[in-house]
Amino acid sequence: MNFEFPFNELPDALPAVLRGPRIERRRVLVGGSAFWGTLQQDGQLRLDDGRLLDAEAQSYLPPVEPSKIIAVHISYRSRSMETRNQDKPSDTPTYFTKPPTALNGHRGQILKPADCRYLNYEGEYAVVIGRTCRNVTPDEAWDHIEGFCPALDMGLQDFRDTDQGSMLRVKGADTLLPIGPGLVRGVNIFAQTLRTYVDGLLVQEAHIGEETIWGPHYVIADIARHITLLPGDVILMGTPCHSRSVDPGQTVACEITGLGRIEGTVAAIAAPRAAALGVGHRPADTPEVRRVALGFDARVPEHLKQNLQRARAGRA
Amino acid sequence: MNFEFPFNELPDALPAVLRGPRIERRRVLVGGSAFWGTLQQDGQLRLDDGRLLDAEAQSYLPPVEPSKIIAVHISYRSRSMETRNQDKPSDTPTYFTKPPTALNGHRGQILKPADCRYLNYEGEYAVVIGRTCRNVTPDEAWDHIEGFCPALDMGLQDFRDTDQGSMLRVKGADTLLPIGPGLVRGVNIFAQTLRTYVDGLLVQEAHIGEETIWGPHYVIADIARHITLLPGDVILMGTPCHSRSVDPGQTVACEITGLGRIEGTVAAIAAPRAAALGVGHRPADTPEVRRVALGFDARVPEHLKQNLQRARAGRA
Amino acid sequence: MNFEFPFNELPDALPAVLRGPRIERRRVLVGGSAFWGTLQQDGQLRLDDGRLLDAEAQSYLPPVEPSKIIAVHISYRSRSMETRNQDKPSDTPTYFTKPPTALNGHRGQILKPADCRYLNYEGEYAVVIGRTCRNVTPDEAWDHIEGFCPALDMGLQDFRDTDQGSMLRVKGADTLLPIGPGLVRGVNIFAQTLRTYVDGLLVQEAHIGEETIWGPHYVIADIARHITLLPGDVILMGTPCHSRSVDPGQTVACEITGLGRIEGTVAAIAAPRAAALGVGHRPADTPEVRRVALGFDARVPEHLKQNLQRARAGRA
Amino acid sequence: MNFEFPFNELPDALPAVLRGPRIERRRVLVGGSAFWGTLQQDGQLRLDDGRLLDAEAQSYLPPVEPSKIIAVHISYRSRSMETRNQDKPSDTPTYFTKPPTALNGHRGQILKPADCRYLNYEGEYAVVIGRTCRNVTPDEAWDHIEGFCPALDMGLQDFRDTDQGSMLRVKGADTLLPIGPGLVRGVNIFAQTLRTYVDGLLVQEAHIGEETIWGPHYVIADIARHITLLPGDVILMGTPCHSRSVDPGQTVACEITGLGRIEGTVAAIAAPRAAALGVGHRPADTPEVRRVALGFDARVPEHLKQNLQRARAGRA
Repeated sequence: MNFEFPFNELPDALPAVLRGPRIERRRVLVGGSAFWGTLQQDGQLRLDDGRLLDAEAQSYLPPVEPSKIIAVHISYRSRSMETRNQDKPSDTPTYFTKPPTALNGHRGQILKPADCRYLNYEGEYAVVIGRTCRNVTPDEAWDHIEGFCPALDMGLQDFRDTDQGSMLRVKGADTLLPIGPGLVRGVNIFAQTLRTYVDGLLVQEAHIGEETIWGPHYVIADIARHITLLPGDVILMGTPCHSRSVDPGQTVACEITGLGRIEGTVAAIAAPRAAALGVGHRPADTPEVRRVALGFDARVPEHLKQNLQRARAGRA
Repeated sequence: MNFEFPFNELPDALPAVLRGPRIERRRVLVGGSAFWGTLQQDGQLRLDDGRLLDAEAQSYLPPVEPSKIIAVHISYRSRSMETRNQDKPSDTPTYFTKPPTALNGHRGQILKPADCRYLNYEGEYAVVIGRTCRNVTPDEAWDHIEGFCPALDMGLQDFRDTDQGSMLRVKGADTLLPIGPGLVRGVNIFAQTLRTYVDGLLVQEAHIGEETIWGPHYVIADIARHITLLPGDVILMGTPCHSRSVDPGQTVACEITGLGRIEGTVAAIAAPRAAALGVGHRPADTPEVRRVALGFDARVPEHLKQNLQRARAGRA
Repeated sequence: MNFEFPFNELPDALPAVLRGPRIERRRVLVGGSAFWGTLQQDGQLRLDDGRLLDAEAQSYLPPVEPSKIIAVHISYRSRSMETRNQDKPSDTPTYFTKPPTALNGHRGQILKPADCRYLNYEGEYAVVIGRTCRNVTPDEAWDHIEGFCPALDMGLQDFRDTDQGSMLRVKGADTLLPIGPGLVRGVNIFAQTLRTYVDGLLVQEAHIGEETIWGPHYVIADIARHITLLPGDVILMGTPCHSRSVDPGQTVACEITGLGRIEGTVAAIAAPRAAALGVGHRPADTPEVRRVALGFDARVPEHLKQNLQRARAGRA
Repeated sequence: MNFEFPFNELPDALPAVLRGPRIERRRVLVGGSAFWGTLQQDGQLRLDDGRLLDAEAQSYLPPVEPSKIIAVHISYRSRSMETRNQDKPSDTPTYFTKPPTALNGHRGQILKPADCRYLNYEGEYAVVIGRTCRNVTPDEAWDHIEGFCPALDMGLQDFRDTDQGSMLRVKGADTLLPIGPGLVRGVNIFAQTLRTYVDGLLVQEAHIGEETIWGPHYVIADIARHITLLPGDVILMGTPCHSRSVDPGQTVACEITGLGRIEGTVAAIAAPRAAALGVGHRPADTPEVRRVALGFDARVPEHLKQNLQRARAGRA
């Protein structure tokens, strides 16, 4: 691995959460009750009560119950280059939040209201807090991490023009955070590669160690300067370049080596009733909305763009 | 209605939670996210976001998230007669608790460990607290009720001999409290009839107003003498006579007019690993276990007994 | 009352949460346990267990336990005028969030890190959700309100330049949301006047009905277009003009007629340890920070400005 | 140490939760907000945000937020001898539960209703679950323990005759579980001594390793055979002999070497309003109530009995 960013330097002794053995915990609904289980090497899910289930055939719940969800705006060089034409977006990370009601599980429906046009995918990895955490250094932060999850930080970019940057409506709507299927510890997150797929075609790709500007230990230490992080809290670590919009019926997946694959399907939903009464900022199709929703293709690798075109064509 | 027990007297003006309009709220898992919805008159479930779903085809979660679950031991005359040969069990109700991990949803799997023999059904109605409640009178208690649910207070009677009456292991195991599918308000609970079915055959039946010894307002006032009840807390109101054991593969349902029908299926599960090491009280088959698990048939209506025999025969 | 904004129109029949009788619920810590109680007309606090306490002498906890806290950016004409020189900030409200860890109780310490300079007060009223709420109209929204609280939406404006508008670090730090002492229902919020005090001197003042651009029913309907609001969720309704910074030792209070008075004292705290390591965006003193932190005095009533000067002089 | 009971045998390598370094976490209310901190060797409490406080001068909250609280009936030889005249109460432990509303903090008020006579102390240590736990062996259970707390399992023995052994009213009333001040890990619980004091005079004493019949790993494995234990769940590990009743004004403390000292004061409270209406089982003064409330002095060490007499005389 080659970590060119200083804040991705690891301590000499790899923190326990990055060392093996790898443990993947999942939470499934079996006939009306939620159960925790551990993924087995043969791909079966062993519930804690001993039942062995076909992991593929289960109904998944999010493997987290956070009191808050904080997301890094930009933490990948390619995303910084795409949105700002800069290798590094700023000297320090910046953040927004998603409410817990945005949580969604593996193979969830990602809801797109009828009056919206741009529902963008963003494949990410999430960090889950294991121990209460405030006023720590980056080195100390590792001990406060429970594990990592694949996640999709979906966004209704039609609301890009409102909320003055907080993105409450862009990123905060119900179902816009598929996460899981597992919560994984014992994996060196810096050695992994993240890939996002639309209808099975690769549309985002990044090596986490080589492309991430700030590691989870840095981000935790940054936030915990002023905010207490509690067990279960979730931090979304940003997406690489080529976040684009998807349509009802399309399937989005984020697969991270070592962590697993989260998948969701875009589903159409009626426009909210209050919208018909003129309540609230209307979904818009402005240059700024388009700038983010459609992205800036110049720096995106050609094969990712072509794959997305193929996915769209396949639906036409 | 004919309420012969003094504590089932209602105030002159029917409390709001007993008056219409009837509202039934349900919580379902749709592709990884839990959603609340309201049952429509045509039987469809309208999610709050506007989606209309076939209520029958959904995956249900319990419609409650209690911080505590308190259960009345005996609150029906027929059950009192059966277990103690007395029309009224005691001057005042008595209670035990179930942990929140016992919650199960509609059409849940009710787990029966391989080393257990007697998993008994008990059809009940549950009261759900709506407002924080301490030190109230029965008349005041009505305003603190959010609504009612059908429930099955399942019990592993093999553990009857242990825990000195607390019934932690009898009633507290995971999945032993199917509840739902809806949380209903606007229904006069005293005018309803409760029926329990095994494999579709009627095995318990009682008119709540005529057979219940203590109403929910009395029970709330009693418990809240010393214990603060919080929003979401659940009180199980006891079962009529003819609680009997069921086997893996059998389906149990509790249907209450006005409230709905909760259903669960008994599923076999391996004995716990610690049991093989000799840890803990072993499931037993003693006279006391049998007394409760098998019940005392003399006072049970003949057709209920015959139906249970037919259900068992149907499986042989 | 004179509601000049269309969205402050009330239905003909005043909603129950705005009608009497007035009920104020408070939560206090008495020797290691939190207890709920109701404020009596004589100013005593009657705990639910019957104890009568001197309300003034208690240790207060926030009277809410929200899963999310959403704040309106600007909802008062005077604040819009001050910050944008416009009578109305935009056609529709915009929002940001505060994490639950920001909650603070009555007479709390509001922490100001040693490396920060601008900790601004903002007196507000909070709306507390009573029933799960999604996809409602403004008229329906009233039934989903549990009540109202006085609140102080404090902000570390030194972080104005970071987080691209989400204000996570400006508004999200621990202790930056004193709220309470009570949760009040049965009061017509539109008929009330909000006043903020620094060291007892009036520094903000607004008649809620006459100056608020959007009422709580509108705001709930707006947010619930896409986001499920859960019982206990808190919405902060914005502040009138003259938000300014305060220093350690100063006391800030927000008093709202009909609702009560929340108070907090600014307390100095060391800079976070990670800051010394160069982690994270540093508190800054830029023109943009100053624009917001110091405000724009031209439109602020003279007596409010003079009072703040007197409060500061009193500390010199 | 001399562990004569087989289930107190430890694995060869001491589990991490029993090994040092010792860490004690506490939660205090500072002016309206709850803060976590770590106790320093000099006795000061360092809040996570860096503030150093005089630990003695703080307002304490319970250092746990359990979803369930399970208590062992009898786990000390001396208690078994006292109540049943047997060295060992049964082959396996038995349990009851307390609702979370019973939680109380250090220096809490323990409420005794005016119509009750026997409020008994029971000094205990509590086990706090750190990781979700189901179907584990005793050896595996250690890794699921977060730490230990001193606790007082107070009981209103006037209700001994009701609830058929579940002890909901005996042990479940508000404030009957003082716990804390800290949650401690890194201490060998088996090497510690528990002492209970009334008004500063020693009234219970037991060496945990030598007198406890079942260790926490056994108890966890036993309960988790059927019940999922969740992070934060609390297990109370029983009390040694000489549980007796105390009166308003008296102070009770449980001090455990290595863990710390929890203290509470008995405070009188009016009888509940519903009691005056004849609702519920009345507090009773029967032989069975007296048997438990007053205990059986024959086997209690003389100095403990004399100390309690002195404590009572000091109040006469």
